[in-house]
Amino acid sequence: MSSWVEGAAGSAYDSDNLPYGVFVRAGEEPRVGARIGDFVLDLAPVAAAEMLDVHAVFGEATLNEFLRQGRPVWDSIRTWLVGLVTDEAERDLVEPHLVPLDEVELRMPFAVGDYVDFYASLHHASNVGLMFRPDQEPLLPNWRHLPVGYHGRGGTVVPSGTPVIRPSGQRRGETGPVFGPSTRLDIEAELGFVVGGSSTLGTPIAAEDFADHVFGVVGLNDWSARDIQAWEYVPLGPFLGKSFATSISAWVTPLAALAAAWTDLPGQDPEPLAYLAPGATRGLDIDVEVVLNGEVVSRPPYSTMYWSPAQMLAHLTVNGASTRAGDLFGSGTISGPDKDQRGSFLELSWGGTEPFDGHTFLEDGDEVVLRYSAPGAGGGRISLGDVVGRIEPART
Amino acid sequence: MSSWVEGAAGSAYDSDNLPYGVFVRAGEEPRVGARIGDFVLDLAPVAAAEMLDVHAVFGEATLNEFLRQGRPVWDSIRTWLVGLVTDEAERDLVEPHLVPLDEVELRMPFAVGDYVDFYASLHHASNVGLMFRPDQEPLLPNWRHLPVGYHGRGGTVVPSGTPVIRPSGQRRGETGPVFGPSTRLDIEAELGFVVGGSSTLGTPIAAEDFADHVFGVVGLNDWSARDIQAWEYVPLGPFLGKSFATSISAWVTPLAALAAAWTDLPGQDPEPLAYLAPGATRGLDIDVEVVLNGEVVSRPPYSTMYWSPAQMLAHLTVNGASTRAGDLFGSGTISGPDKDQRGSFLELSWGGTEPFDGHTFLEDGDEVVLRYSAPGAGGGRISLGDVVGRIEPART
Repeated sequence: MSSWVEGAAGSAYDSDNLPYGVFVRAGEEPRVGARIGDFVLDLAPVAAAEMLDVHAVFGEATLNEFLRQGRPVWDSIRTWLVGLVTDEAERDLVEPHLVPLDEVELRMPFAVGDYVDFYASLHHASNVGLMFRPDQEPLLPNWRHLPVGYHGRGGTVVPSGTPVIRPSGQRRGETGPVFGPSTRLDIEAELGFVVGGSSTLGTPIAAEDFADHVFGVVGLNDWSARDIQAWEYVPLGPFLGKSFATSISAWVTPLAALAAAWTDLPGQDPEPLAYLAPGATRGLDIDVEVVLNGEVVSRPPYSTMYWSPAQMLAHLTVNGASTRAGDLFGSGTISGPDKDQRGSFLELSWGGTEPFDGHTFLEDGDEVVLRYSAPGAGGGRISLGDVVGRIEPART
Repeated sequence: MSSWVEGAAGSAYDSDNLPYGVFVRAGEEPRVGARIGDFVLDLAPVAAAEMLDVHAVFGEATLNEFLRQGRPVWDSIRTWLVGLVTDEAERDLVEPHLVPLDEVELRMPFAVGDYVDFYASLHHASNVGLMFRPDQEPLLPNWRHLPVGYHGRGGTVVPSGTPVIRPSGQRRGETGPVFGPSTRLDIEAELGFVVGGSSTLGTPIAAEDFADHVFGVVGLNDWSARDIQAWEYVPLGPFLGKSFATSISAWVTPLAALAAAWTDLPGQDPEPLAYLAPGATRGLDIDVEVVLNGEVVSRPPYSTMYWSPAQMLAHLTVNGASTRAGDLFGSGTISGPDKDQRGSFLELSWGGTEPFDGHTFLEDGDEVVLRYSAPGAGGGRISLGDVVGRIEPART
């Protein structure tokens, strides 16, 4: 059912979407809102007026308390919220709390606990392997057996719109390392999964319990300095080549809005071990557009990802690692099989050797927008929040 | 000057030590205390009675608010605290708030933000290189140019005494990966550095500003499942082989207590790049004992570490990465040049091929205690908190 909110019906932010974020109006404290059309619904006063038990979580400056509540609360709030914006009888209650988007500033939607980044695209891992290890099989022996991942820096995850300052660091020089601004600054177009509820140290999360532990998704750009990364990453993995900034969308799209987006995985060969629930988990049909200075340069399809989100979470916790509400895991770069489906400039320019539309790596002043969309329950497409970042020159 | 507190004078917890922790008495809320002798000084009521501006930070359940205050506050509180426990005139104020250690439970001292683990011991990195890559130079080309490090899991850092459940996971089998409890469970004896104050995205922390950003140190055991790690770690580094648990001491020893422990580094060749302040930073003369089931099996000397703590922090932030109060970075395994100075069972047993005192890797029921001590300002030695962990069988 479409929303009665002005302009929302049939838009990419109709009642089948309703992502959550944190907004602030001039002179007020930041709090939780839901997007409908081009408005933010200020949830705290509406929930208080309706005497909802959880109303206080919407008065917080982050989504973390809401994330802590778990699936039954998330689902009942979703049902309530859909009712508010689709039932004309709610108009008098709701309308005073609809704030036009252009009157608010969007903040970081949640405080990130642990951030894990996976490497779940077969095409991306193969492309990187071909470029970095041309004399070997592109995929390392473990790749088809487990979703390879590593921990990134939670404290430098920033919301869409935050400028990205070109990082400086060590890179390989002709006679030894040299220090300076990165000359191979890149993007990685990813999807991020936002963890809620709770889990206990020593108790893995089974793949089938995914929806009890993942609240929703964000768009994610894992900015990468390839020259810094290439010099530092042996033997303990990427560090400063990634930790300077990771951008996420200001809106968190709940899993409930993605019910129509689930799709079969492309297929896994060999069959993974039992804890990865072979054949029992699904992928997501989400389309991504990589926009550089206003031009679409790539369209990575999330549906081509090899490992499923549920497999990533099951793997992340199979050793007994616990999760906290606000943990975030990224899919890794989304790259499809075709050239114009690659999710990094490293791949689009084949290591800088084949410029695309005149580009190789990022220049100062470049602006990258990642746009995400998925089939909505209403038959149209819903939009996940954009992820925007503009490159600022290195600080000296 | 020694303390008037009963039993403290001349002990390893005299007035030149005074570490901070979080304690809880039966029926009360957890709050911040300082250790003196075998007592915890309950800081909140004493600070409130003296009307200190910051008294509220001691009523918190973690040290994080105190960590946020920064160096000037840390130093003035230290001066105040030393006065309290050394000046007989303070006895009437202080004595009612001295709680015997055996009446309290110690909690996790701070909520960990980002946890970074370095690899700063030349001897450890060389030993591991010799074992894992016997046909190559033991040190990879970047090792002498930068403190190699990676992000670990902040959410699974646990306080001393927390049982460690043997993790399960994938390891390499004869015809493919197999799943099961780790068969090569190990320790890594490290020193941890606790970050406070604040820093801004885009602004590196200079090596000389170390003491404005590091509050103090903890003992740290980076439990490691070598079989899981060996199979998973290419190309993105250690993940589940480490993320199941990292134990730290319940006490955080402030840098102020380590004033007599600074010592010259063993020497760096080649000279590192300028941002690593070659020649201008120092190491720490801290002794570690690795105790397995009551027997000392190794004595790693922190003074042999190649990279200094200030260099680690400068490197961690040189790309502009910001820090949060409660971030933690570990030194990496502390191993000296001698066999009985190795900080991991991997090295002590040379990959399991040369049992030491009948041991190779950890068995269920084994208890490991890491003990740390340093020269104190009073001429004796101060004790850093122990790090204790006992291995529980894998859950099925």
